[in-house]
Amino acid sequence: MEPEAVVNAFIAAVERRDLDGAIALLAEDVRYENVPIAPSVGRAAARATLEMVLLSAREVEWRVDRQVVSGQVVINERVDRFRFEGGWLELPVAGFFEVGDDGLIALWRDYFDMATYMNQLGELTGGG
Amino acid sequence: MEPEAVVNAFIAAVERRDLDGAIALLAEDVRYENVPIAPSVGRAAARATLEMVLLSAREVEWRVDRQVVSGQVVINERVDRFRFEGGWLELPVAGFFEVGDDGLIALWRDYFDMATYMNQLGELTGGG
Repeated sequence: MEPEAVVNAFIAAVERRDLDGAIALLAEDVRYENVPIAPSVGRAAARATLEMVLLSAREVEWRVDRQVVSGQVVINERVDRFRFEGGWLELPVAGFFEVGDDGLIALWRDYFDMATYMNQLGELTGGG
Repeated sequence: MEPEAVVNAFIAAVERRDLDGAIALLAEDVRYENVPIAPSVGRAAARATLEMVLLSAREVEWRVDRQVVSGQVVINERVDRFRFEGGWLELPVAGFFEVGDDGLIALWRDYFDMATYMNQLGELTGGG
């Protein structure tokens, strides 16, 4: 698969909340960085984070507003949407993906504002 | 100037803390968005924000770690560094620029984590 097709398939798996399908598109030693917090290395760590994020929501929709490809690099501007009992959480994200020759994502780095996420999470789940 | 040259010149002006030089590269009706806060429209608003950011620091260095060009769009991953009395503040940023045919920046959108900025600002300036 071409790099953009890999990223598109990854996002489609995320939206289905298909954790196995999403993780299968990450390299064994994937570097996964949510920029506001510490980066992680390896599928297991990525799986733990994704599981928490995806399975706590009732629906997941990652709207891609722009996507640019340069060689093995895929960059997108997204609005990551998560439906909770109280409504939809919407998080603007800039994502950078590096896809290896093996068709697996070797780097996934998301820039976003953590407070934008946490404040909505608190409102929509009654926590926070 | 090509889109990438415009963005490079803009960043160079920022690093010189040359507010007039930076603003001259923005379109009259530039859309300037710091994603964690409200977007602004127009040079005057961009100038007010940039002035506050640039002139409060003693030195400014925006390190570009990756830059990708696609037509009129320039995307970069940066570490925006600001030196205060207490030391350097370092902010990871994903920047998206759209450059018009007139060689001026029509859209400038930066994704970053506001708390990463504010926490360091508080530590380095004794405020916050």
